[in-house]
Amino acid sequence: METGKQKGAPLPTVRRLPTYLRLLRQMEKDGREFVSSTAIADELHPESIQVRKDLAVTGIEGKCRVGYPVSELIQAIEEFLGWDNTTDAFLVGAGSLGAALMGYEGFERHGLNIVAAFDIDDAKVGRPLRGKEVLPLSKFTDLARRMHIRMGIIATPADAAPSIANLMVASGIRAIWNFAPAKIIVPENVVVQNEDLSSGLAVLSRQLAEILEKEGEA
Amino acid sequence: METGKQKGAPLPTVRRLPTYLRLLRQMEKDGREFVSSTAIADELHPESIQVRKDLAVTGIEGKCRVGYPVSELIQAIEEFLGWDNTTDAFLVGAGSLGAALMGYEGFERHGLNIVAAFDIDDAKVGRPLRGKEVLPLSKFTDLARRMHIRMGIIATPADAAPSIANLMVASGIRAIWNFAPAKIIVPENVVVQNEDLSSGLAVLSRQLAEILEKEGEA
Repeated sequence: METGKQKGAPLPTVRRLPTYLRLLRQMEKDGREFVSSTAIADELHPESIQVRKDLAVTGIEGKCRVGYPVSELIQAIEEFLGWDNTTDAFLVGAGSLGAALMGYEGFERHGLNIVAAFDIDDAKVGRPLRGKEVLPLSKFTDLARRMHIRMGIIATPADAAPSIANLMVASGIRAIWNFAPAKIIVPENVVVQNEDLSSGLAVLSRQLAEILEKEGEA
Repeated sequence: METGKQKGAPLPTVRRLPTYLRLLRQMEKDGREFVSSTAIADELHPESIQVRKDLAVTGIEGKCRVGYPVSELIQAIEEFLGWDNTTDAFLVGAGSLGAALMGYEGFERHGLNIVAAFDIDDAKVGRPLRGKEVLPLSKFTDLARRMHIRMGIIATPADAAPSIANLMVASGIRAIWNFAPAKIIVPENVVVQNEDLSSGLAVLSRQLAEILEKEGEA
């Protein structure tokens, strides 16, 4: 087993790793010990060369004729993503999106623990959200520092997002997961992942238009 | 103005179009008539060659020294994405994720109109969700056919998603936006967009691990 993990792995590869992980966990549950890149490709992708390239970032190599050791590969992907340790996160925005994220299946299995939700709205503060009390935004900085929180999740309306991002950065947050459809600006030593639902809708709308056009022409 | 729209535009390009659209609408609101690819790149991306390539799919070309006509470009992107017409969609899964999607800012501006939400849970049926009554799943097929609904949104738990996808396909749905972390299988004449939140988390977790490692080494 090689231990030479690559840094700066290609983002598309990183994005695909959870999908491999889900399949591998299912295979492990089914009692499978080894799996070939071809078998993985059959389930997920058309090209098994892509599977081999993607999985190479973990440092695990498939063996001739038997393939990858399933459990070892699961562990290596989890390590690579940092999902073998729990990451505590604070969420801001206790609306329905915040509730959806706090209840999203699988986050805990990915080592994400949303320990507290904050809101600026007095009507939401003090009420429970998915079993956790919503805290006033004024407590964010103090609690984030005391608890050494490194990840922040923005689930506010778009216009609130930039100032929430500033608050997070000032409170020691180093990774921001931004679900608001707004641009946020952070220093170089902070990473941001924007989840813009409009991007997915754009792809789907365009593809739907294409198949309907094609049928109209036919 | 060229009208030769490219079919089968690269997906990364399509994914970026909503970001351009948001910036261009802001510029239009600010009274700007023309914008260069360099000015767009300064706001959004490091490479202006990428901007020119992306915007080429709309058929609009930037003019020497003045750049792109802002209003025309907005219209061309909307047309390309099919966002100049309203798409009616049915949503299944009236939980907090469903509520978040029904209330998500900007979907209506993108021509997406979620006309009804369905659930299998009797406790949710008949109650309002974002101002619309939740309907029983048993009514899905009949209503989808009568209203010629082409887009379906899955916001159910993972284990329900495959059977909901089958129901949608059988009801004439041609485009499925799947928010459940589950694989769904559809015929070739149906398009699927999977929004797997774990992918974004993977990227963010890995990047956070990288910056923290780097600092630990320094």
